[in-house]
Amino acid sequence: MNRPLLLAILATLSAGVPASVMAQGVERSATARAADAAPVLVTVDQWRAMAEAGDRYPMFAQEQQRVEREVRAAMAAGINAPQPRDLGGGLTHEQHKANYKAIAGAGALYRLTGDHAYADFARDLLLEYARLYPTLSNHPAGNSSVKGRLFWQALNDSVWLVYSAQGYDAIRDTLTAEQRRRIDNDVFRRMARFLSQENASYFDRIHNHATWATAGVGMTGYVLRDQDLVERALNGTTKDGRAGFLRQVDELFSPDGYYAEGPYYQRYALAPFIIFARAIQQNEPQRDIFGRRDGVLLKAVDGVIQSSYAGYLFPINDAMPDKGLDTEEIVTGVAIAYAQTRDPSLLSIAEGQGRTILSPDGLAVAQGVATAAARPFDFRSMQLRDGPNGDLGNLVFLRHGGVNGQALVMKNTQQGQGHGHFDRLNWLFYDNGQPVIRDYGAARFLNIEAKNGGGYLDENDSWAMQTVAHNTLVVGEKSQFGGDWHVGEEHPTTPLFFNVADGLQIASARLDNGYAGVALTRTMAMVEHPDLALPVVIDLFRAKGETPTDYDLPLHFNGHIIKAFAAEHSVRERPVLGDAAGYEHLWVDAVAPASSEARSLTWLLGGRFYTYRFAASAPISAMLVESGANDPNFNLRREPALIQRMQGQAEASFFSVLEPHGAYDGTAETVSGATSRITDIARARSNGAEVILLTLVSGKTLALGVADDVAETAAHAVTINGQTYEWTGPYARFDR
Amino acid sequence: MNRPLLLAILATLSAGVPASVMAQGVERSATARAADAAPVLVTVDQWRAMAEAGDRYPMFAQEQQRVEREVRAAMAAGINAPQPRDLGGGLTHEQHKANYKAIAGAGALYRLTGDHAYADFARDLLLEYARLYPTLSNHPAGNSSVKGRLFWQALNDSVWLVYSAQGYDAIRDTLTAEQRRRIDNDVFRRMARFLSQENASYFDRIHNHATWATAGVGMTGYVLRDQDLVERALNGTTKDGRAGFLRQVDELFSPDGYYAEGPYYQRYALAPFIIFARAIQQNEPQRDIFGRRDGVLLKAVDGVIQSSYAGYLFPINDAMPDKGLDTEEIVTGVAIAYAQTRDPSLLSIAEGQGRTILSPDGLAVAQGVATAAARPFDFRSMQLRDGPNGDLGNLVFLRHGGVNGQALVMKNTQQGQGHGHFDRLNWLFYDNGQPVIRDYGAARFLNIEAKNGGGYLDENDSWAMQTVAHNTLVVGEKSQFGGDWHVGEEHPTTPLFFNVADGLQIASARLDNGYAGVALTRTMAMVEHPDLALPVVIDLFRAKGETPTDYDLPLHFNGHIIKAFAAEHSVRERPVLGDAAGYEHLWVDAVAPASSEARSLTWLLGGRFYTYRFAASAPISAMLVESGANDPNFNLRREPALIQRMQGQAEASFFSVLEPHGAYDGTAETVSGATSRITDIARARSNGAEVILLTLVSGKTLALGVADDVAETAAHAVTINGQTYEWTGPYARFDR
Repeated sequence: MNRPLLLAILATLSAGVPASVMAQGVERSATARAADAAPVLVTVDQWRAMAEAGDRYPMFAQEQQRVEREVRAAMAAGINAPQPRDLGGGLTHEQHKANYKAIAGAGALYRLTGDHAYADFARDLLLEYARLYPTLSNHPAGNSSVKGRLFWQALNDSVWLVYSAQGYDAIRDTLTAEQRRRIDNDVFRRMARFLSQENASYFDRIHNHATWATAGVGMTGYVLRDQDLVERALNGTTKDGRAGFLRQVDELFSPDGYYAEGPYYQRYALAPFIIFARAIQQNEPQRDIFGRRDGVLLKAVDGVIQSSYAGYLFPINDAMPDKGLDTEEIVTGVAIAYAQTRDPSLLSIAEGQGRTILSPDGLAVAQGVATAAARPFDFRSMQLRDGPNGDLGNLVFLRHGGVNGQALVMKNTQQGQGHGHFDRLNWLFYDNGQPVIRDYGAARFLNIEAKNGGGYLDENDSWAMQTVAHNTLVVGEKSQFGGDWHVGEEHPTTPLFFNVADGLQIASARLDNGYAGVALTRTMAMVEHPDLALPVVIDLFRAKGETPTDYDLPLHFNGHIIKAFAAEHSVRERPVLGDAAGYEHLWVDAVAPASSEARSLTWLLGGRFYTYRFAASAPISAMLVESGANDPNFNLRREPALIQRMQGQAEASFFSVLEPHGAYDGTAETVSGATSRITDIARARSNGAEVILLTLVSGKTLALGVADDVAETAAHAVTINGQTYEWTGPYARFDR
Repeated sequence: MNRPLLLAILATLSAGVPASVMAQGVERSATARAADAAPVLVTVDQWRAMAEAGDRYPMFAQEQQRVEREVRAAMAAGINAPQPRDLGGGLTHEQHKANYKAIAGAGALYRLTGDHAYADFARDLLLEYARLYPTLSNHPAGNSSVKGRLFWQALNDSVWLVYSAQGYDAIRDTLTAEQRRRIDNDVFRRMARFLSQENASYFDRIHNHATWATAGVGMTGYVLRDQDLVERALNGTTKDGRAGFLRQVDELFSPDGYYAEGPYYQRYALAPFIIFARAIQQNEPQRDIFGRRDGVLLKAVDGVIQSSYAGYLFPINDAMPDKGLDTEEIVTGVAIAYAQTRDPSLLSIAEGQGRTILSPDGLAVAQGVATAAARPFDFRSMQLRDGPNGDLGNLVFLRHGGVNGQALVMKNTQQGQGHGHFDRLNWLFYDNGQPVIRDYGAARFLNIEAKNGGGYLDENDSWAMQTVAHNTLVVGEKSQFGGDWHVGEEHPTTPLFFNVADGLQIASARLDNGYAGVALTRTMAMVEHPDLALPVVIDLFRAKGETPTDYDLPLHFNGHIIKAFAAEHSVRERPVLGDAAGYEHLWVDAVAPASSEARSLTWLLGGRFYTYRFAASAPISAMLVESGANDPNFNLRREPALIQRMQGQAEASFFSVLEPHGAYDGTAETVSGATSRITDIARARSNGAEVILLTLVSGKTLALGVADDVAETAAHAVTINGQTYEWTGPYARFDR
């Protein structure tokens, strides 16, 4: 790495040195320069450093070329700021989106290349907005509760402002005073007023949409040298700190950097937090925004990366399953976090993303990557505590075997607001680069107009959010909290214990109010054993109700069934499982009658076999089902699931083991280990404690004891198959 | 490239120089050397050239390392030639498979490294077979019509012989005379006798299984210096040329190198042809085996590569859809073909395969790749004529846009023997790296014992082979030829025309005897138009029956439905479409009543939209269905299809257009071109000719005229929408 240069950049960055010289080749603009118009979001010195060094670092140079192609295409197409008309995916929506990218891109390219055509294009486009914007009232389409003017929802207007402010900052000192006045007043001040005054209650919400608004208004404040706007953005419309960006930082992330709505929205929410924080750091370093709350914004970047597998975010709550670490927001987050921390493991994420951004942060990333400074990102077992104080549940990751190894996700969070699903105590499992036990994510085709304008589909409510669409217990064929997220918001999940040790990783949590009068406790362990090539997952799900009821435990597995338990198959026609709470979307393929015997199901996925072995404390029937019923618009994907059903019991324990095994290679035509190495699963309960006992092919046994009382000092004893297992504390493992 | 070395290798290869010196470091074996025991399949000089040069060429060096790991693992596990017991996928089956690979690998490594431990391991393993083999009678498991001794079918015994003969050849001169005698007699001669005498009628078949037998016996003949075995292999058990390898070369491939069973079996059949041909070329170059029939074996290698898309073989007939160009057989075929032709476009296929073989051919490939000699493979529009004389139909490929562009496959072949499907006039379509209109392939889980021992499933007959499982017309809800492949073998398809020109590629074929009294003619065109970003596929399927009957035209599309035509949906339960001929495996999702109006269906796949617009000469109903009904063992994949149904008509014309359009990018959250650029499809027929008329959004029209009489001089006129289209010849395109 070029150390002196890097130090120079760092010094510039941390000192917030005012612009004093122009980047190479932009002299033509000098006549129009004004002292209060020089760039402030990225200084002239920083731009010059990028202009000089960018060529030498492929990742930066490639991004510049990409943006050049994009902006050149926009310039060739000509100035077009159409009268707003369409929903997401529609022509005017996509054009205004393209425009803010073009303004930001053209501003950066002007500074990086010195080519005044870019500045002129951004100017002309902004002048066109100065003509258009004052003529607009609320957007005509859609039914958003907070309409925008350029877009159908104010959210998109805020995003427009965040990106356009950056482009405007870069070219503002090339304009005449009159041009500046028009754009300042008729675009930026009007939009800031629209968001922070005309929609003050929206602006003052503690919600990620409002963060885009505070970021847009705050960055506008810096660019226009309008400290009033900055103050409103930071501390709310009443400037008392009860709302605004700082309050959002304090409340929207947990102390571990978890964002209440989950990773998909964390990715989206992250962008305005990180982009505005960088602007604050540049203009008001004394605020130490990246140090706030013990560095919670940087923890949030780490947390969203931790919330991924094989490049894709865990799709809990409303989430598009194709959303990954290579999105614009996370590319931006990684670059800005790297510039703050110089953590070389972020560089390996940047390598996976394959690109960075045109900023001093992006240059630092490109330099790090080019000098082979990258280190593997440490995907590790951890819990992300939920809630502003970290006491509203947790999201647990148990990992083994590195990037493409095993990852178990256990969702013991709070509700996650309106985008939260009714899936407390849900689990997901990844292995061999694939989701093995999965979450449907959201029922939505983002930006595809033919699918409800690209918004959430009805099936998002009727299926994707419902408890039965997840891998957690359904009581009485109803969803948790009666399917009312406002009720769910009042009841966090209670983590009981979390421990990571060699060969045994374990987590447990309790949900008391998901169903009236029923306490749910789940304990999940990832366990290694010398007889088993890969770790297995042991699951104990206990329900303690006051009166007899019905329990259904779904398992949404991914793969082609190789061997199923004996069952009656739907042959002449395929019935629907139920009428409501998501059951109306399930076709029934096969039903096995109630039995106390352990059953197993083996499937094949991506060249590996998975055997799930299961039973319960009372006889259960077992159903093989598939999503897609009652779906006249073909909105749902069709995915298989197993449902274990226990009827007429007050208390229930469901216990199971999931075992990855063997290999199938279609190219080489070889198969190995197609048969499970576990021969039986059994369970006993006495005196408030339970033991799950696995018997292996070798005859060895592996037992897991789990106690109701999680006190470290409580002693327990359970006898099963004539053997007694004794331990002290919440859990214990026994190898015999 | 090291030119002198390459020339030396080439000289050695073409002259078949007898072994005169030992490879470096194998001196210990000199005492055991015998003049008639030196390697003949690859000479000592050739081995030495590989030993000296291999290190310098990464692809060769990596393959050597891979084989070293494999053989070292086998050596560590110890000698194990178990009593035969299991079906494919079972322990003894997989062990004997692993053994022949270990013998071949150890032989090669001995020559390449000089490490005598490899030779000793191959020797000990072969001596163990010399002990075991004479004790064996027919294999106990399975119901193969021609049982093997080591394996459940003689086919696998033949493969064992082909590979083990190569390993034995490499180490034979390291053995004592007594060891050689035992292995010669108790393994190779006995196996050759088993295949070519005890199973003489099997050996004399003109079928790919018998090619493995002739190759194994012939290579054994070369290794043992037994010209009698070579003669039997080349010319059949009666040595008169009515059977044997040469007859197989003459009859199993068409003059264009197409193999009657289709690409999947062509891949498999290719290996013994190419491997044995190489041995013949090495030992009897005067036979000019690679020049036989105008180089048909090299055409067969080219043909199988042409029969692929995105690395996967077109899965027509019985075929595993995950089978690609990276299989051992095609790696071998590419290496041997490259050594013969030095065609640099084969090197790009080798690069895609990522490996080569440990032979002089593999060294040549590794050298070519290392010296950047590779050129892109020319995937081109072409027809592969079927039948030994090329007059039994054709397989048509229409391509556009390069490797990941559009590829249309039209199957106008003969039946393809017992692995042939009842799918004449079927079509497949690939675009953007994905199968868009697809073929189910075979219903089979190769080598997975829990799935019928890894063999073909019952559903292969009841579903995968049936006409309704393909994209071709079903008459009277029955499959072609009454579902009897022996009948199908008697009736080839008749190609009518095939032409490739700029902007219009077209093929047409007729099937007369698929259904009694009904002549079927299909014409398919891939057409470009300035208004359309990508070519569209126009399809005209005409049936001419003698009496009114029912016609069903299935379309097995791949993707998620974005917008379907209006239809009644199965809500409370999902019925099964029929009772037989594959209909019993289809669930009905939605039915639209009979109508003459054109309908359309839009789906999304891999970030691109596809709109299929269709109608017919009489009212048709349209059904959306899915495979997977009547499948108690979950043997079928569940895939959607559209079925167009016309009832009670003698004559029918189904006409349609498939249009790829637009882009969906989930990462960038952008959508473009989600709406079809075609607004209508219409059709008229008069005087033995038909016109299909597309109207585009711009108002322009694109018409395709197709005549019944395909004479070049016949004149035609059809009037539609008040416009008359006149042309001469089998077809014409009109742009207005």
